[in-house]
Amino acid sequence: MSNEVKFREIKTEIRVLGIDDRPFTPRSKGLVDVIGVVYRGGYWLDGVMKTSIQIDGLDSTERITTMITNSPHYHQLRVVMLNGITFAGFNVVDIKRLFKDTKLPVIALTKEGPNMNEIKAALKKLPNWRERWRAVKAAGDIFTLKTKDDAEFLSMQISGILRQDAEKIVKMTSTRSSLPEALRVAHLIASGLI
Amino acid sequence: MSNEVKFREIKTEIRVLGIDDRPFTPRSKGLVDVIGVVYRGGYWLDGVMKTSIQIDGLDSTERITTMITNSPHYHQLRVVMLNGITFAGFNVVDIKRLFKDTKLPVIALTKEGPNMNEIKAALKKLPNWRERWRAVKAAGDIFTLKTKDDAEFLSMQISGILRQDAEKIVKMTSTRSSLPEALRVAHLIASGLI
Repeated sequence: MSNEVKFREIKTEIRVLGIDDRPFTPRSKGLVDVIGVVYRGGYWLDGVMKTSIQIDGLDSTERITTMITNSPHYHQLRVVMLNGITFAGFNVVDIKRLFKDTKLPVIALTKEGPNMNEIKAALKKLPNWRERWRAVKAAGDIFTLKTKDDAEFLSMQISGILRQDAEKIVKMTSTRSSLPEALRVAHLIASGLI
Repeated sequence: MSNEVKFREIKTEIRVLGIDDRPFTPRSKGLVDVIGVVYRGGYWLDGVMKTSIQIDGLDSTERITTMITNSPHYHQLRVVMLNGITFAGFNVVDIKRLFKDTKLPVIALTKEGPNMNEIKAALKKLPNWRERWRAVKAAGDIFTLKTKDDAEFLSMQISGILRQDAEKIVKMTSTRSSLPEALRVAHLIASGLI
């Protein structure tokens, strides 16, 4: 617990990268686009980036890292938010490694808390399931937090950031819905591009 | 001049569709993605849509019309903004027909005013150049307006809307730059998806 990024103050216009994947046909194969959206706090869009990852593959951590570190926005970014830790099916992002390789704190958020037994059962059907399961477990504790309006709960896993800082950033940037703008808009863009 | 949409009042959260195309390799052939972004005034993103058109083709008006009328956002939209009238090279949008077929007023905006002699010379090298030139001329008068901060000029062509209403909407929705948010963000999304 000694290598978190410390936020002495969190600016309302903090640059957040929100990441989501494009919907795809279940049980298909191939590549799925992953969209990254740079937002200034909960207010305005600053940029968009893209990568693609294998359905049910093992490359999401590496591909997302490269997308981030190659982006012209990289050095302005302060935090990465993921729509959960599984992309393109069960291509699990190792959020510890993502933090280590990008030096950016990671917040993975979902509306429904992950059902670990279901995930484990699904992973067991895939090749390299132990590696995937290790990444799922490495994502660490699942924290529950209330949405800004206190009406719903979100599930959160974090890497490289203190829980209270992560909660503050999530609430501060959820200006238009119960999710941070970067994640809400990443989802709208990814789903609008089918 | 009798069939404009009359805006009795223009709400600050008016739903605007901003349209831009993806950059593409000059002198290449094939399809280019065109992105539509639904914005609430100059404030927040409500949705994203996509179509694709032929490089230097003749299908932009029809494809953009279909993208709009097939969208779940169609009946909430109040105005369409285009980044100029030429997409994917010289695939000219006929803004009169776009208004007629969608019933939505159209505002085409550019930072540099179109150089009609250059456009005509370029069109003459393409098949069906007379049809394209007709669409360019049909876009009508080119109005110059100052950006909100009075620092720059924009060129505007309109269809189905009074000039003063169009100017008001452009200025009201230019919250983060000299362009309306819907167009600024459509450009960022389209360029980020290469």
